[in-house]
Amino acid sequence: MGEFEWIEEIKRKFEGLVPEGSQGIGDDCAVIPLGNGSSLVVTTDMLVEDVHFIQQQISAENLGHKALAVNLSDVAAMGARPVGSFLSIGLPKHLDEKWRSSFIDGYKKLSVLYQVPLLGGDTTLSEKLVINVTAIGRIETKNLKQRSRAQVGDRICVTGNLGDSATGLRLLAEQKLLPNALAQAHFCPKPYVNEGVWLGEQDEVNAMMDVSDGIASDLIHILRASQKKAQIELAELPMSGEMENVCRKHDWNANEIAVTGGEDYVLLFTVKEDRFDNLNNRYRSEFNQNLVPIGQIKEGVPSIEWIEKGGLINLDWKGFTHF
Amino acid sequence: MGEFEWIEEIKRKFEGLVPEGSQGIGDDCAVIPLGNGSSLVVTTDMLVEDVHFIQQQISAENLGHKALAVNLSDVAAMGARPVGSFLSIGLPKHLDEKWRSSFIDGYKKLSVLYQVPLLGGDTTLSEKLVINVTAIGRIETKNLKQRSRAQVGDRICVTGNLGDSATGLRLLAEQKLLPNALAQAHFCPKPYVNEGVWLGEQDEVNAMMDVSDGIASDLIHILRASQKKAQIELAELPMSGEMENVCRKHDWNANEIAVTGGEDYVLLFTVKEDRFDNLNNRYRSEFNQNLVPIGQIKEGVPSIEWIEKGGLINLDWKGFTHF
Repeated sequence: MGEFEWIEEIKRKFEGLVPEGSQGIGDDCAVIPLGNGSSLVVTTDMLVEDVHFIQQQISAENLGHKALAVNLSDVAAMGARPVGSFLSIGLPKHLDEKWRSSFIDGYKKLSVLYQVPLLGGDTTLSEKLVINVTAIGRIETKNLKQRSRAQVGDRICVTGNLGDSATGLRLLAEQKLLPNALAQAHFCPKPYVNEGVWLGEQDEVNAMMDVSDGIASDLIHILRASQKKAQIELAELPMSGEMENVCRKHDWNANEIAVTGGEDYVLLFTVKEDRFDNLNNRYRSEFNQNLVPIGQIKEGVPSIEWIEKGGLINLDWKGFTHF
Repeated sequence: MGEFEWIEEIKRKFEGLVPEGSQGIGDDCAVIPLGNGSSLVVTTDMLVEDVHFIQQQISAENLGHKALAVNLSDVAAMGARPVGSFLSIGLPKHLDEKWRSSFIDGYKKLSVLYQVPLLGGDTTLSEKLVINVTAIGRIETKNLKQRSRAQVGDRICVTGNLGDSATGLRLLAEQKLLPNALAQAHFCPKPYVNEGVWLGEQDEVNAMMDVSDGIASDLIHILRASQKKAQIELAELPMSGEMENVCRKHDWNANEIAVTGGEDYVLLFTVKEDRFDNLNNRYRSEFNQNLVPIGQIKEGVPSIEWIEKGGLINLDWKGFTHF
């Protein structure tokens, strides 16, 4: 029984307890309606030393940033505004006051940027460093974006580059230094908070989620929830010049890393085909950046068809799973 | 810098970000007002293998129960009704499907008892087992019970026995079998959910919290938040017959274990002196149990005076801290 099967088992066991209108396991966040047209969204993420990070490779400040960022990304992926966070930390004895203060400083800097207060938490000893963050957001219920809303014909879009973080991770495994863009993406990822809230307010945006395990895995969640198929154009995948350079130099398959690597924390969403240009124009004037269309939603069994030079190609790329 | 000093540092750093009306670090739960006379309360707790429990000593089912119970206890300590929980779990490879299913079954049984849905979570690999639960509750804001509300003259009460769990832990350390009452308290503690909600609705109840580190430590939190002193009558401390027997046999100081042992998860609260009898009568007809008065709130510097046979005695008993 793998990770996703176990999650399915848990989901089944608790289905009967979830009240009408609430949404439990199965999206970036749970949804709890508050009864006045607004909803609460809640997400939680655990980072474990030597599983998600090597403590000597990441600065305390970056780790503090990243632990919060991945949760803010989940809240934003619902279209919601984060309103508070909770931090549990299991600390090994050798991490001293200086480390602890820097960790909190990194966490705080991001908290201040998006005005998200740390409201509570727990501290304990632990052999390996372990960090659990819970983030809470609020949203007008009508603006909620869920994985199940993709429609046939929708353009599939992302808000930023794919594969930078994963390429950085590969370089780290070879004890190599990281070019700036890859270090930034891997150690200090930007959560698309304001972009997520804005996209939440746009009617033409249908399904939305954030990319944490790579789109080869994450997009499948949208496709299963929406009972649709997707076609992805490999040539459209947005990649940084630094990432492509590194891949060329190491003879790594950049496309494969871009779709399976994970930890991108960009937003992945679908938008009504005939509204894409209009949406992109407004997005650009708001955020000074373009949305990146990478494919289209089709009728069919939930699966991804990879397109290269106009033709289907056969790939068995999968995203990341823990067990 | 110890655990509590670090928490104070974190609290100071984030104070400016906490919005008017919200309450951050410093009580059993954070409080987020929802704007319609009701509030959300949120708590989070991390349990780490070999710090909070020995995996071989506690059954998967009990561990699932306990991980949720300690959080429901925090929600109840605010007077709030739990409405959802979130479970993050870092799993060692050797814990198989059977273990995982039993863990979830224990978690679910308690969830069903109080109708609290598991709404989300995270799963990951980990060398040592680590569990983080976040619980959310709702309450009419006027019923919120906080640590800062103790008044001079208030009776200090608890809802159940002290020291059973800690005595059980001492027996485990000596590889001894546990009498039933101690095993129950240590492995499968009862969260006072309905009692907490009921006490929340009673005007004569002032400060409230739950006992997790032992009253020698926990009561100090109420006293500091309320800027008051307490007198505790050692002879009034409620202890089970099994616990007193075990302590006698091992020549352990039962009083000391009762106030410093921790993991009792009973409610500790203060009530207007002249209302105690009336409150206790109503509580008994509701829950078929008596409240246990153990002392009184006095004017003075935050500290506990221990009273034995009518006189002050000098003790330096402290509750549990992690570092």
